[in-house]
Amino acid sequence: MSNPGEYALNSKAVAQATAEWLAKRGVTKREIAELTLFLQKDYYPDLTLRECEENVDAVLSKREVQNAVLTGIQLDLLAEEGKLMAPLQEMIHNDEGLYGCDEILALSIVNVYGSIGLTNFGYVDKLKPGILVRLNDKHDGEIHTFLDDIVGAIAAAAASRIAHRKQAEREEARGERGEDVQLP
Amino acid sequence: MSNPGEYALNSKAVAQATAEWLAKRGVTKREIAELTLFLQKDYYPDLTLRECEENVDAVLSKREVQNAVLTGIQLDLLAEEGKLMAPLQEMIHNDEGLYGCDEILALSIVNVYGSIGLTNFGYVDKLKPGILVRLNDKHDGEIHTFLDDIVGAIAAAAASRIAHRKQAEREEARGERGEDVQLP
Amino acid sequence: MSNPGEYALNSKAVAQATAEWLAKRGVTKREIAELTLFLQKDYYPDLTLRECEENVDAVLSKREVQNAVLTGIQLDLLAEEGKLMAPLQEMIHNDEGLYGCDEILALSIVNVYGSIGLTNFGYVDKLKPGILVRLNDKHDGEIHTFLDDIVGAIAAAAASRIAHRKQAEREEARGERGEDVQLP
Amino acid sequence: MSNPGEYALNSKAVAQATAEWLAKRGVTKREIAELTLFLQKDYYPDLTLRECEENVDAVLSKREVQNAVLTGIQLDLLAEEGKLMAPLQEMIHNDEGLYGCDEILALSIVNVYGSIGLTNFGYVDKLKPGILVRLNDKHDGEIHTFLDDIVGAIAAAAASRIAHRKQAEREEARGERGEDVQLP
Repeated sequence: MSNPGEYALNSKAVAQATAEWLAKRGVTKREIAELTLFLQKDYYPDLTLRECEENVDAVLSKREVQNAVLTGIQLDLLAEEGKLMAPLQEMIHNDEGLYGCDEILALSIVNVYGSIGLTNFGYVDKLKPGILVRLNDKHDGEIHTFLDDIVGAIAAAAASRIAHRKQAEREEARGERGEDVQLP
Repeated sequence: MSNPGEYALNSKAVAQATAEWLAKRGVTKREIAELTLFLQKDYYPDLTLRECEENVDAVLSKREVQNAVLTGIQLDLLAEEGKLMAPLQEMIHNDEGLYGCDEILALSIVNVYGSIGLTNFGYVDKLKPGILVRLNDKHDGEIHTFLDDIVGAIAAAAASRIAHRKQAEREEARGERGEDVQLP
Repeated sequence: MSNPGEYALNSKAVAQATAEWLAKRGVTKREIAELTLFLQKDYYPDLTLRECEENVDAVLSKREVQNAVLTGIQLDLLAEEGKLMAPLQEMIHNDEGLYGCDEILALSIVNVYGSIGLTNFGYVDKLKPGILVRLNDKHDGEIHTFLDDIVGAIAAAAASRIAHRKQAEREEARGERGEDVQLP
Repeated sequence: MSNPGEYALNSKAVAQATAEWLAKRGVTKREIAELTLFLQKDYYPDLTLRECEENVDAVLSKREVQNAVLTGIQLDLLAEEGKLMAPLQEMIHNDEGLYGCDEILALSIVNVYGSIGLTNFGYVDKLKPGILVRLNDKHDGEIHTFLDDIVGAIAAAAASRIAHRKQAEREEARGERGEDVQLP
């Protein structure tokens, strides 16, 4: 625990840095939302890109997600600049198959809306649709070993959030939503 | 995906069953909140049991948490009645040290408010303060192999939620909270 | 901790029950190995079904995996017999989209060979190739809500194990493997 | 997937770097083993420090563990040198309570021997016995935000490995161990 006199975290600064760094690394909200739409359009034919964008925003507003995004982009950047310690530099630079810390950070993003997002994360991470093709391209000098998993994870978490919301909407339409049930 | 004509999940029924089964198994909101207070009182001396109870309610309102609670209590009950398949019956009945599915379900509860709750979960699960002594008692004929981990996990998740809330309150007090930052 | 006089777990009994229950539920080692081959054949063109079977055996020899298999099959069976408590019965019977305890148990299997298996798990769980089509069929009266995720997870873990082994073989071929490096 | 002509990972180099960096950061095998002994001595009164050291070695021989150790130490080092991007620098430098990526990496170590290690990890991470007091000291200019969780996780994983081994020894002593049971 830090002394509040010395250190006062500002959540807004963390959120802002997350948005800025995603933009600097060439990731737009629209592109993440397109992955989410790709994942959910068969289940919800009326789902719009706009709704997906709102759900991506909600995912990105979580501190746990912001922490993972910043940490992953930081490691990608350092690998790009060749500044990591010897074997880590090679592993991250080459997106080494036996290096799994990128998947671990991504999992912490997926988990924010529960385990139902696991399957969607694995699916886009393997198929690499949309923006993930570009992030995964190994020939442009840019390193996105962490970021491609992170973007897939944000899209998968947004898909989970949509699943929860759509259920709530259906129940409201049936007039079943009441006040919260509380433990005695 | 199920046919909506055949199956229409009612979230309220799931929430209600969770509250009822926790009560039937002898767990009160107050007792879980006492674990949370035990975990957080050194960091937030002004924290009240009432606040802890509100945070326990918030944790229990999550579907991911309700699913884990119901699944765990179900397995405990079946073990109590001797109705599980052979080696599973012995493992759950004896809270076998090499059986870790109870910790896995508990982890899915802790993760709802992020990885910062992991440490608190492990701590109460090992120390067994308050209600956890009783749940862990092996001599009353009741089996709580899953429930003791689940209760510790709910308390730890509530502690994580409090950490997030207290940070937000500090920032509001400093006038630092503005509108949400969004990805362009 | 149980009293050794009262309870003496026999690991062989757990392994045996796992093999028997998988067989009873219509899952063969060959079918899981086919999923693994499907996942890895593009990376290792010489990989044989026989090698995949050996790696599936290695995954199944782990207690953590056996525990998850038995727990998942038990819940499937009880749902088939209609013996679960009210909302859990409906959720597992209908493979409810917001119920994620099946993915959680599966994740504990995947993790046995590290996070690199996450992507492969999600991929087969979504694509449902081979045996997973049959397990996922909702019209034969059988419930495999847990088992289909578990089978995909075993196949993904076997794929991870193969990735580790192949790397070791390449290094041996280059004469680079020496004794283990130990911390001073 | 990298082109094997350009990149050939050498596992020994990864293992060696892990051992060297732990030593450079002041962590000895003996100190990690002492944490493991602290966790397990009540359950196995005859357990020796030597046995704990062997189990720590086994944990450290896993690539998943080595990856997490190197990644965590790298981030600690960069924070010490003040070279991280703005909000990440402050968060890691101050071991910020809402930053959980250190716990996430640690969890990937604990999981190597299954979920039964979760409780032990949380317990030492909170109690901070032995070497963890020193690593957690915020006044010596060194940053060990990741390393203190990593060391606790290695100790907890070694404790899990011991639990599995001791069970195998008991069964052998009873003459119950036979050949492996295989899926038909």
